[in-house]
Amino acid sequence: MSESVDFVAQLKSISGRAEFNNWLGVEVAAASVGEVELRLPWRKELGQYSGFLHAGVIGALLDTACGFAAYTMVGPSLASQYSVKCLRPAVAQVFVVKARVLKPGKQQVFTQAELTSLDEPGKLLAVGDTLLVPAGM
Amino acid sequence: MSESVDFVAQLKSISGRAEFNNWLGVEVAAASVGEVELRLPWRKELGQYSGFLHAGVIGALLDTACGFAAYTMVGPSLASQYSVKCLRPAVAQVFVVKARVLKPGKQQVFTQAELTSLDEPGKLLAVGDTLLVPAGM
Amino acid sequence: MSESVDFVAQLKSISGRAEFNNWLGVEVAAASVGEVELRLPWRKELGQYSGFLHAGVIGALLDTACGFAAYTMVGPSLASQYSVKCLRPAVAQVFVVKARVLKPGKQQVFTQAELTSLDEPGKLLAVGDTLLVPAGM
Amino acid sequence: MSESVDFVAQLKSISGRAEFNNWLGVEVAAASVGEVELRLPWRKELGQYSGFLHAGVIGALLDTACGFAAYTMVGPSLASQYSVKCLRPAVAQVFVVKARVLKPGKQQVFTQAELTSLDEPGKLLAVGDTLLVPAGM
Repeated sequence: MSESVDFVAQLKSISGRAEFNNWLGVEVAAASVGEVELRLPWRKELGQYSGFLHAGVIGALLDTACGFAAYTMVGPSLASQYSVKCLRPAVAQVFVVKARVLKPGKQQVFTQAELTSLDEPGKLLAVGDTLLVPAGM
Repeated sequence: MSESVDFVAQLKSISGRAEFNNWLGVEVAAASVGEVELRLPWRKELGQYSGFLHAGVIGALLDTACGFAAYTMVGPSLASQYSVKCLRPAVAQVFVVKARVLKPGKQQVFTQAELTSLDEPGKLLAVGDTLLVPAGM
Repeated sequence: MSESVDFVAQLKSISGRAEFNNWLGVEVAAASVGEVELRLPWRKELGQYSGFLHAGVIGALLDTACGFAAYTMVGPSLASQYSVKCLRPAVAQVFVVKARVLKPGKQQVFTQAELTSLDEPGKLLAVGDTLLVPAGM
Repeated sequence: MSESVDFVAQLKSISGRAEFNNWLGVEVAAASVGEVELRLPWRKELGQYSGFLHAGVIGALLDTACGFAAYTMVGPSLASQYSVKCLRPAVAQVFVVKARVLKPGKQQVFTQAELTSLDEPGKLLAVGDTLLVPAGM
């Protein structure tokens, strides 16, 4: 079994233990060392007042993806800082979040993520980054 | 009727139109020109894998409070950037978020927010800031 | 000799060992546990193309003040992340930067800073925050 | 004459009008629509107390590169927010900063930048992003 399949299974298991992730309904589409891809189908409870994906949900998605990317390199960790840039109104049938580790470390893990839609992979809806601290520290 | 009471009613009405806010369950505890206070009772769907408030929910709360503070000065606006600092594991029976406008503007509104618990108001759990663009722009 | 005087002297000595700080010319006006105040007189080499304080210099000032505030609680540390919000064109005869520690820690120190002018202390020109890692880690 | 050569000349001229940029000594190595590359040779006035590139200078470099990238799409603009992640001690003979526009707009321009050394182009020293407002607004 490839390493990639392993990470997907591990991340699904971890995600399932976080109640908010269960509500959010993110699917782990792919995972390898330092990189993950999540998907989230649109449903109306995820919306802000105009029916776009809520900025709070955008942040939760980006941060979750960054935490999963960090997991593939350092195991469980906690977000200490994250930031979110909302480039356009986030509208899609299925949202796609890709995250990658920029720099792993014992004390801090630097990660970056981007949000697109499954239909228009080249059009950035939002970008973000998270700084995490390995949980064992 | 005082201006403060007005804002609370207006913000409740606006919040009620955002499906995610309804799920989140934030209560508008106080609101005046440039300042709001929200409360959110803990429930387990808000948690990450260790049972702390999920960093994604922390961001959603801070960002929502910042948007409401901006509303009291410029009306509806959209978050274009926000950042979140998680200072400590966020554990509380009732979370309190206070947000204020640092600088309103026609193009951009700068806001800041902090998360504490109702029991320990002096102990910061998280801080954040949001940059918003008035929706009429 | 009071603790406050001690910190001012220590910070002057540390600042003097950083070549960029010497060029920048920041003065340590006050320092106590978790808090510092720096001053910087305007000169034209600090300017961007319109003659305002350059955003890069604003960041350098805020970050330096945050590092000094962290020093008063944990000793030498390194900035791993900082952010800057430029609220208004930064124009002043003498700039004032106040920084404080929000949360010290062995792994990470969270700090916040604000930039004003000596003439108008109530008018925020910029705000920022820095996340630092103690150098001994 | 190609558009790329044009931008380099324009940016050199603009940079020359900013006193701080003159002191900093950045060279515009390349520029095209939405992308720029700057270089900065090390000299000791750019250092912090350990002799690494000062975090304040890192931010100034990233922010300057982002502003130049924005210039190629919207003309002069002002930074309203930027953030800097220092991934590793920044040591190099010649620093290289690449910036690109993620999303141009009439109200806001989102940009991203990274810092490497000329000798090790694949090793990220720092990353950052700037949100700019077109000056004509």
